[in-house]
Amino acid sequence: MKAEIITIGDELLIGQVTDTNSSFIAKALNGAGIEVQRITSVSDTGNEIISALEEASGRVKLVLITGGLGPTKDDVTKAVIAQYMGDRLVSDPGTLQHIQSMMAARNIAMNPLNIKQAEVPEHAEVIRNSCGTAPGIWCEKDGTIYIFMPGVPFEMKAMMQDELLPRLQQRFATNVILHRTLLVAGIPESKLAIRIEQWENSLPPNIRLAYLPSDGMIRLRLSVAGSNRDTLVSQTETAIETLRPLLGMSLLSVTGEQPEELAGRLLLEKGKTVATAESCTGGNIACLLTSIAGSSAYFKGTVVAYANDVKTGVLCVNASDIDHYGAVSREVAVQMAQRVRQLIKTDYGIATTGIAGPSGGTPEKPVGTVWIAIAEASKTTAKQFHYGNIRENNIRKSSVAALNMLIETLNGLSSAR
Amino acid sequence: MKAEIITIGDELLIGQVTDTNSSFIAKALNGAGIEVQRITSVSDTGNEIISALEEASGRVKLVLITGGLGPTKDDVTKAVIAQYMGDRLVSDPGTLQHIQSMMAARNIAMNPLNIKQAEVPEHAEVIRNSCGTAPGIWCEKDGTIYIFMPGVPFEMKAMMQDELLPRLQQRFATNVILHRTLLVAGIPESKLAIRIEQWENSLPPNIRLAYLPSDGMIRLRLSVAGSNRDTLVSQTETAIETLRPLLGMSLLSVTGEQPEELAGRLLLEKGKTVATAESCTGGNIACLLTSIAGSSAYFKGTVVAYANDVKTGVLCVNASDIDHYGAVSREVAVQMAQRVRQLIKTDYGIATTGIAGPSGGTPEKPVGTVWIAIAEASKTTAKQFHYGNIRENNIRKSSVAALNMLIETLNGLSSAR
Repeated sequence: MKAEIITIGDELLIGQVTDTNSSFIAKALNGAGIEVQRITSVSDTGNEIISALEEASGRVKLVLITGGLGPTKDDVTKAVIAQYMGDRLVSDPGTLQHIQSMMAARNIAMNPLNIKQAEVPEHAEVIRNSCGTAPGIWCEKDGTIYIFMPGVPFEMKAMMQDELLPRLQQRFATNVILHRTLLVAGIPESKLAIRIEQWENSLPPNIRLAYLPSDGMIRLRLSVAGSNRDTLVSQTETAIETLRPLLGMSLLSVTGEQPEELAGRLLLEKGKTVATAESCTGGNIACLLTSIAGSSAYFKGTVVAYANDVKTGVLCVNASDIDHYGAVSREVAVQMAQRVRQLIKTDYGIATTGIAGPSGGTPEKPVGTVWIAIAEASKTTAKQFHYGNIRENNIRKSSVAALNMLIETLNGLSSAR
Repeated sequence: MKAEIITIGDELLIGQVTDTNSSFIAKALNGAGIEVQRITSVSDTGNEIISALEEASGRVKLVLITGGLGPTKDDVTKAVIAQYMGDRLVSDPGTLQHIQSMMAARNIAMNPLNIKQAEVPEHAEVIRNSCGTAPGIWCEKDGTIYIFMPGVPFEMKAMMQDELLPRLQQRFATNVILHRTLLVAGIPESKLAIRIEQWENSLPPNIRLAYLPSDGMIRLRLSVAGSNRDTLVSQTETAIETLRPLLGMSLLSVTGEQPEELAGRLLLEKGKTVATAESCTGGNIACLLTSIAGSSAYFKGTVVAYANDVKTGVLCVNASDIDHYGAVSREVAVQMAQRVRQLIKTDYGIATTGIAGPSGGTPEKPVGTVWIAIAEASKTTAKQFHYGNIRENNIRKSSVAALNMLIETLNGLSSAR
């Protein structure tokens, strides 16, 4: 079963907003055994929307669409659906009631635009929007199913999960698609490709391999499709087991987790806690760790020591060491990691200090120079990295490298048992 | 002048990676007076790529493509270009030399895959990739220009900015497209639409208005196209000035800046400094503030007090107040803001404490309850918010609300002068 996704919105075509809906929908459909063939973004214009719908229906029998269902004038999707389906818009009593109760809960009076939101194409099926006032719309024409969802990400997500996936699974699931993602750190992409070339060539023909380099790591993705889930699971497991000895400790994980998820799971499993002392990463490591639900079990706190005064005043880093070695140095990173571990009373302390840029570099320490340290009770490890000129990259790559150092430490812990 | 964007990669169609390249390219093209008509994402498959190229060429004369130029087997774009153009791949000496020097700088030995990366279609123009080893490719067929760029975002961005935009501007710029984005907080979308309806109806026909609700704010975007930049600027200025009295203090900004940029600029202009004490936002406010280059001039540091021990131990929040009022309370938020301001010695202290979820809620304080406080020398302001069940939303909306409270404070400062 194949599907296409269409996202509607001028904001996407002028680059004001990044389309995050498509990746969410694609992932959800893959999980239900439905492959996505194409993603198309078009403007809030009747002709553009209708062309996209017609073209997609020539390729697939299922089209999921987001955007343009809001109450304001720039939202035209509902009128376009009615035109495309040869239907008319009528007020749906259930939807009107839902909108009324949502507005009442927020203590906002109903206005004509809210009332208009209850209008739907007369012969379409209305899909409940539990998180918002714009209803979803399911309609069929000439053997193709069109599902229209609101463009607001959390409304669309709840609608996909609670309303649409169960229906789609019931109606279409025939095939199984599995993706397994492995996290590899410390080997450049082309070197990795050569190291695992023979293994890659020996993979069964239904396993497809992809290399996704990002943030100084490489994600290796194994994709496999077939009719029997157990067979596919065992095929990918076998492939991963034969890959393991080729990668050693560079294979950080085979679970597809993000570094912050993996670090969190390992901390939880081993009953350890962590705190961070961040300079150049500005709180990003804390942010990543706390993006995971339940992180309060292992993450205790952070000192973002952006100013040197905070490094000395709050973290008690030795001021003369900052003068002598510079704020971006092994000595300062080590002290920050040790002091935050003591201050916040955790098993591990992570510290970063670097020059995120674009300015602040020197010939000896150019922009992108970063020191990262991990303090444990018995020892502290520090490493220097160079990430180049781009501030955003430096912050992200340093954060991921710090999490990877923690993961290596935690993985080492388990193999030493 | 109209263009289309095609992004290539299985990872986009299975939802593993969000396509951030398209929005960057679209924004850059708009800045150069080139409108984007459609964005299409297709898989790393020859037929799919060729169909997408052919279809786009039927609609526009300029197509920008990213992805699939890497050294590994899953990257097929270069072979597809050669096939589509009826050309053959040959090694480009300049590119080979560039790859050699990049690998040497990283102390990595050249391997056959690196050498292969220097292959380009014989009759295409090679575009330098200053940040990576995959060259860009510019080719023309039947009056349509195709520009292929690497999919790695920072490589693509540098190539767009340094190499492509200057050439495109020189070759195509005829029209001017301007977008102005206004930030409105504290008014629901449908209520805002009604309040400004008359103003909206009185806009000149070449100004298009869009409502973009996100993170508890609404972005109002005015888009205007024409031949003379000065005329367009003055048209939008007039529209904004007539809108101002309808929105009052709810109009946070007319500059299109993100809240963290706007807060940063106001702090810098007024010579003020800020520190944050974050519980439920887990460092996200610090992260947002430090994402801006030059933020060290006004952002000094943060204490992420995720555990109550850190609230009492590092921030010296009164433990009996935590027992009595709960960690999520006005009293605790106020103390956190005041103490971090004193500890880090800044003009403003921002604090957040809330229940990000998904668990931890109670009937009196459900998940999504958040207290935010802003401490100044003379007073501390605190507000309660309710953001619902979704952790990610709670963190993001709380962070934006905190920045908006700071912006209101800083805006108030200027109008009081």
